[in-house]
Amino acid sequence: MMNFKKELDNKVEIINKYLDEFIPQPHGYAEVIYDAMRYSSFAGGKRLRPVLMLSAFEAVGGVGEIIYPFACALEMIHTYSLIHDDLPAMDNDDYRRGKLTNHKVYGEGLAVLAGDALLNLAFETMIHAIKSQKSWEAVEAMDVIASSAGIKGMIGGQVVDLISEHKPVDIDILHYIHKNKTTAIIQAALKVGAILGKGSSTEIKALEEFGYCLGMAFQVQDDILDVISTQEELGKPIKSDEKNGKATFVSLKGLEYSKEYVKQLSRDAAHQLEIFKEKGQFLSWLSEYLMSRTY
Amino acid sequence: MMNFKKELDNKVEIINKYLDEFIPQPHGYAEVIYDAMRYSSFAGGKRLRPVLMLSAFEAVGGVGEIIYPFACALEMIHTYSLIHDDLPAMDNDDYRRGKLTNHKVYGEGLAVLAGDALLNLAFETMIHAIKSQKSWEAVEAMDVIASSAGIKGMIGGQVVDLISEHKPVDIDILHYIHKNKTTAIIQAALKVGAILGKGSSTEIKALEEFGYCLGMAFQVQDDILDVISTQEELGKPIKSDEKNGKATFVSLKGLEYSKEYVKQLSRDAAHQLEIFKEKGQFLSWLSEYLMSRTY
Repeated sequence: MMNFKKELDNKVEIINKYLDEFIPQPHGYAEVIYDAMRYSSFAGGKRLRPVLMLSAFEAVGGVGEIIYPFACALEMIHTYSLIHDDLPAMDNDDYRRGKLTNHKVYGEGLAVLAGDALLNLAFETMIHAIKSQKSWEAVEAMDVIASSAGIKGMIGGQVVDLISEHKPVDIDILHYIHKNKTTAIIQAALKVGAILGKGSSTEIKALEEFGYCLGMAFQVQDDILDVISTQEELGKPIKSDEKNGKATFVSLKGLEYSKEYVKQLSRDAAHQLEIFKEKGQFLSWLSEYLMSRTY
Repeated sequence: MMNFKKELDNKVEIINKYLDEFIPQPHGYAEVIYDAMRYSSFAGGKRLRPVLMLSAFEAVGGVGEIIYPFACALEMIHTYSLIHDDLPAMDNDDYRRGKLTNHKVYGEGLAVLAGDALLNLAFETMIHAIKSQKSWEAVEAMDVIASSAGIKGMIGGQVVDLISEHKPVDIDILHYIHKNKTTAIIQAALKVGAILGKGSSTEIKALEEFGYCLGMAFQVQDDILDVISTQEELGKPIKSDEKNGKATFVSLKGLEYSKEYVKQLSRDAAHQLEIFKEKGQFLSWLSEYLMSRTY
């Protein structure tokens, strides 16, 4: 167990090093935008998505550096989505991970542009990697990321989340929101890791399924923590879903059902890792580690 | 002359047809986002950037369909930038091209997401084209578009534009804003057309230079029209630059100097087209047509 935690820390450290390289240092007339991009990119994110991508890459025996620009690109997309999601016109959050949100520090206009810039930079970073490696797998990987981030994925989920506030929401709509807003990107992380690592189609499929179960479990767990955690532990105001009039798994199905559902998804996720034998052990540990989190 | 105008109308029509195909019809739980994306995409845009790309493609003798997804992707990027630029936290404009701006119709939250969705869809559209054609020129073309749209291009220009409001701005900063906020994308349109049309490096360079002159001329012309046009002609409030405390070429260098500068840039642009002989005639006409506009 100690070794896995150390491996996780190592992965996070490597990703932070690459992120620091891919997001330029502030310079020139527009230097404030680099500050804003870096502020949210280095505000204590857990690097869950890039770590998952890297772990899937290793689970299929991937080698080489191609994984890092893609892992960082996905983290940039995640960060841009948080910056825009926190805006007054969206979730209107003042704090994230215990720090002021981007627009509270830089103002709304620059927060919109910092998000735009991170989304664009994610693609620039992937394109440069594709050009230097001349790899069609990398083009396929970029396609997976682009689709999962767009209207048929993350943005679609954010839209339905936004328009559903203070409205009656049934379990189908909530499922759509969770599946798209959070799960799509997590699923893409696993699939892209498997593609770039040149996994077999069976391996790619298994990791994609694992990603689905983990992503949904992670999101339902978020709903649970929003109710049972404390502001100190969570680093942001608790009961924000209730405050924003948002339906959650807990509000629709109750706390016990939600906890049970997370357990079921975790079992399904574990099942998908069986074919990887010892190479899947880190992902297996990570999945359990994430499900036992209290923040 | 009549033929050129007809050719322009034909190009605009073809681009509109492809755009209509690439931006999905509203459907599903998130259907409002498709409405919002389509609202601004079909709000009377002149299609200047895709028309320029198509014309550069033809000037170097390009053949095939690959140009259309790229032309539409650039238009999507242009449209997303307008939606975000019009937001209250940015230029705070209620009207564009005589119609209500996106956030006035759909609200700020959805306007942010509609912009995000169009930027993402631009990349999805290019990636699908690259995958179906397996063309490395197309990867290069996507790189040019991504760079011109990012922090070293359009977004950088928007940032400096935003932070310079109500502040003393010298001609160097204004030049940076114009070069990046508007010109970078116009220049990319020409360069990408030349790359996808498999032009020689001399042809690509000439069209890139042409794009620079045209883009700068177009932006300075915008500054001029903001002062001398009427709201009816322009389709948006005039003197918005003055209202927003924005320095312009006209405010820094005067109206006469600005008009002379546009003429000089137009001459420089024309000069770059000489190597294309009769194949450059449409671009030559288009350049003059744009410089004589009053709206």
